[in-house]
Order: sequence, then structure tokens, then C-alpha cells
Amino acid sequence: MFYVIGLGLGDPKDITVKGLEIVKRCERVYLESYTSILTCGQEKLEEFYGRPLIIADRELVEQGADAILAGANQSEIAFLVVGDPFGATTHTDLLLRAKEKGIPSRVIHNASIMNAVGCCGLQLYSFGETVSIPYWTDSWQPDSFFDKVLANADRGSHTLCLLDIRVKEPTLESLTKKIRQYQPPRFMSCSEAADQLLKIVHRRRESGESSCRLSDRSIVVGLARVGHETQVIKACTLREMHQLDLGPPLHSLIIPAPEMHPLEVEYLQQFCDDDLQALVKRALAPPSTIFKLDATLSSNS
Amino acid sequence: MFYVIGLGLGDPKDITVKGLEIVKRCERVYLESYTSILTCGQEKLEEFYGRPLIIADRELVEQGADAILAGANQSEIAFLVVGDPFGATTHTDLLLRAKEKGIPSRVIHNASIMNAVGCCGLQLYSFGETVSIPYWTDSWQPDSFFDKVLANADRGSHTLCLLDIRVKEPTLESLTKKIRQYQPPRFMSCSEAADQLLKIVHRRRESGESSCRLSDRSIVVGLARVGHETQVIKACTLREMHQLDLGPPLHSLIIPAPEMHPLEVEYLQQFCDDDLQALVKRALAPPSTIFKLDATLSSNS
Repeated sequence: MFYVIGLGLGDPKDITVKGLEIVKRCERVYLESYTSILTCGQEKLEEFYGRPLIIADRELVEQGADAILAGANQSEIAFLVVGDPFGATTHTDLLLRAKEKGIPSRVIHNASIMNAVGCCGLQLYSFGETVSIPYWTDSWQPDSFFDKVLANADRGSHTLCLLDIRVKEPTLESLTKKIRQYQPPRFMSCSEAADQLLKIVHRRRESGESSCRLSDRSIVVGLARVGHETQVIKACTLREMHQLDLGPPLHSLIIPAPEMHPLEVEYLQQFCDDDLQALVKRALAPPSTIFKLDATLSSNS
Repeated sequence: MFYVIGLGLGDPKDITVKGLEIVKRCERVYLESYTSILTCGQEKLEEFYGRPLIIADRELVEQGADAILAGANQSEIAFLVVGDPFGATTHTDLLLRAKEKGIPSRVIHNASIMNAVGCCGLQLYSFGETVSIPYWTDSWQPDSFFDKVLANADRGSHTLCLLDIRVKEPTLESLTKKIRQYQPPRFMSCSEAADQLLKIVHRRRESGESSCRLSDRSIVVGLARVGHETQVIKACTLREMHQLDLGPPLHSLIIPAPEMHPLEVEYLQQFCDDDLQALVKRALAPPSTIFKLDATLSSNS
């Protein structure tokens, strides 16, 4: 049997009772480690389970599926995933591979950012399509996700923005060498995401795109380490978010619909230092001038 | 401390290790019982926890928040919710009330249908806004949710349809009496949802709404008892779904985007008795005639 088990979001005890029982009895247990990370780290998981884990990085999962599934017809193999098993396409692919090999599989669900994001008080059924914000480089600065944010906003829907994770990325230099060298892991912060969003808003306004309903005054909600004891939620303007440090990863950013339900505003208020209702009104007012990118915006990306 | 603890979707062992520890030590433990139900039932939960649960129905939660929160400043009170705590507005409201009273609170997340729906292979980030399909009566047959389904489809997004749950609904007759009498609980099945959807499609086509991209040939995905051992997933046409019996509650229905990603089709195929790719192509072809409501459609609603 091949199990794909969701670990939830916070610490080792966020695994379900059913999941823990399976982990304890499996022959091999893999920990997927490149689409997300658990705030607590591998050692604490191993200590809690009382057994070693095999780290499954991108190379192993995408090229070593046979190795992961080996023997799963005779014994039990578990594959642990931060959040819920169906958060990333690669896990769906692993389950398909198991099916092709005639290996029975079972999924143990858990919380993921896709539903735990409700902790800020914005109603889950009012979220539109989720987007991913990728790290920009000097020569690659895609902003097509922004059209989805605008389309959601036009329909009165919130947008959850998943922020880029770069783990075990080969350095450009090492791609041509025999020995792979890796860049240090990077996890996009809400501040970095706000920086890129401000630049997109600025560009679009400069190019005369008057339909853009987002501005530097738009409300955004930053979430850090959701489900963990150190969880932080902050509601503020996009411009203010750029200045905020919400601490260690993982971060997610929500761009709420321009008009929120009163109960949503009431709940969000606890995460806002200012009068949120006033901020919402101000954001809805037509922008008087194109705002200027100021010195606080980094110029290197 | 006031805890709101998600139970997940399947059986008692789907609670997290952290959640179980809290349940075992709390002074009072409530089980919310009107926005969802756990397939296993209250008795199995009580047996697994080794303690009695207080059933929290709609009346208690909406009018008895003070009773639920009583003493939570000195001791620990838990409120159990099927799925994730932020699935329903009323739970957000309870947390707000706790805050008003100065009672510290903590949320223990878990899987909910909003993320576990990924088990059918449709990618979570390709879902648009979620809709709810209400039970129709003779005089009340709202179909505004259908516009959201169409808007999602136009954008290439899937729609998760949450199906109506009617628990402890007073009978019309008893509303004027002193003693409340309740209707038997009802949980909308995928077949019932398909019946209403077919009627909406039919009405709109008859009224000349040519923009309606959905037809009786559109693919839908029915899910029953997600996360439980008896979980059933079926992909078929809307017309076929109306004929299917997916067994006991809870059911959910997905209306996928007219065009799906190849990996999504590949994964969904395992839940389809026909060639799914052919069904998708047939559904995308322009409808030749307005389809006729046949005798298989119930005429009582």
C-alpha cells in the first residue's frame, strides 16, 4: 500500500491520528521537501515519529518515482506532504504512477493553506481562483497572474496568492558542470510580494490601463506560518505591506475583493492597526494621481 | 481558553494529534451538528475520545453563544467542527464573541471539502468561486448560483458546488405553535443537484440564453463521503449524474471547466466508466437542439 499523508501546516502534532498510526508502521517514510516546508523542520518530525525520514527533493520525486514506489505492493510505504496531499501536481502524478503499477494507494487529508486561509476571517466561498507569484529576475518579470487577481476583484472575489518557494535550485553556473551546486533556499515574503505587486500596478497605470482597480492603497492581508503557534496575520495597504517584516517563512498574501462583507471587515479588524473600514473606503476612492514609486521600493528586482 | 477544532472529513481518527490532546483535557466539548455531519456519527466520536459530547445545534450556536463560552476564561472549552473551523460563518462569529469577552481562543485546522476536493485530480488552483446549491421548493427555485458557475466556466475555472443540508428545520406548521416540531434531516445528493441543474439549463435554453455553455452533456464530478473509507467519486455527464446513486451523505458536485488540463483528464479517467476524453469533446460540440426534459427528471420540484 502506498500512502500519501498530509501533515497540515504547523508542527508535528498537526498530523492526524490516522496518519500517525500509518507513519509508525510503514517500512519506508518519505518527506516531500520542495513544494512546501513545515515550520518545525525534519528533526522534530523524526523525534515525534520515533523513526528516520527519507527526504524527497524535486529530483527524487520527478525522476525517482520507481524508487519511492518500490516494494509498495508487498509492504507499506508512506509519502508525507506538508499541508494536504493534493496541493501540488507532482503528488497527483505519484498516485497515477502507483495505479499504473497496480499498487493500491490511500490518501490521508489534512489542512492546507487553501482552506486554512479562512483564519483571517475572509469567507472561503468568496475566494476566486488562486494565483502563484513567482520570484522575478532581471530578465524575467511575468505579471500574467495579475490579470486573474483583477478578474477576481471585478467579480467581488478575494485572491489567495501563493508565494514562490525555491529549494535546491541549481546555480546557473553549475548547470554546465558535472557537479551540481545549489542556491540557498528562498521563500518569498509578503513584503517581497508587495514589492512586485506595487511595480505591476505602477507599470499598468503608467501605460494608461485605467481599468486597474488595484492601487498602492488597496487592502492586502499578509499571513505567516499559518497554523503554527507563531502565526502572524496583518491587514494593511499594499504599500504598507511592503514595509512589514512578518518573520520566518512560509508567507501567503491575500488580495481581498475591493468590497468586503461587514462580518469579514469586523473579523479582519483585529489584524489591522488602523481603522480598517476607513482604509477600505479610501482604497475605493478613485486615485487622484498615479502614485510614484518611492525610494522604499527596492530597485534590484 | 476557547478551542475551535476541525475534525476533518472521514472518521474519528481524522482529528489531529494536537486536537485529540485538547479534546481529552477540556472541561466541556461541543460538537457542531448543523453545517455538516461526520460520516461516523456522534457515538463513535464519544467512544474514541472516551468522553461525552454536547451537541450544538443551530439554536444553541446562534442564540446560546454565552452558554458555550461560559467559564472559558478559567477553564478550557472545545468546540468541534466537521472539516475545518473556518468552513462556516457561524464559527467565525463564535470566535469574535470570545474576543469581545476577552476569552483567548485557538483554532486547530483540519481538512475540509474546500481542499480535499482535490482528491478527484482537478487542480485546486483551477477552481473559481465555490457555490451552494439550495433545496428548491414549489415556490422558491433560486438559480443565481448558476451565473457564478457560468462565469467560472468562461474563465476556464472549475466550480465546487456545496449541496444543501437541512438539519433540525422546524416544520412550517410548527412555526406558529409553542412546541417546535422538526422535519427529518435532508442532505442533497449529487443526483438531486443534477436534477435542479438540468432544469436550470433547460429553462435558460428555452428562454433563448444562447451563451449558456453548459448542457446535459457537460461533464460533472460527483463526490460522496470524501476522506472516508467508503468514498466514491464518479465522473460522467450531467444527465447521467441525475441517474446515479452515490450512497449515503455527504455529497458534493464539481462542474469542471469545459476544457481540462490533460493531467486532470488522465486522473479523472479512473472515476469514469466511459472514455472521458471523448465525453469532453462531445460536451464541447455546439448543442444541435434544445434537449428535452424526459420522464427521468422528477416533476415534483
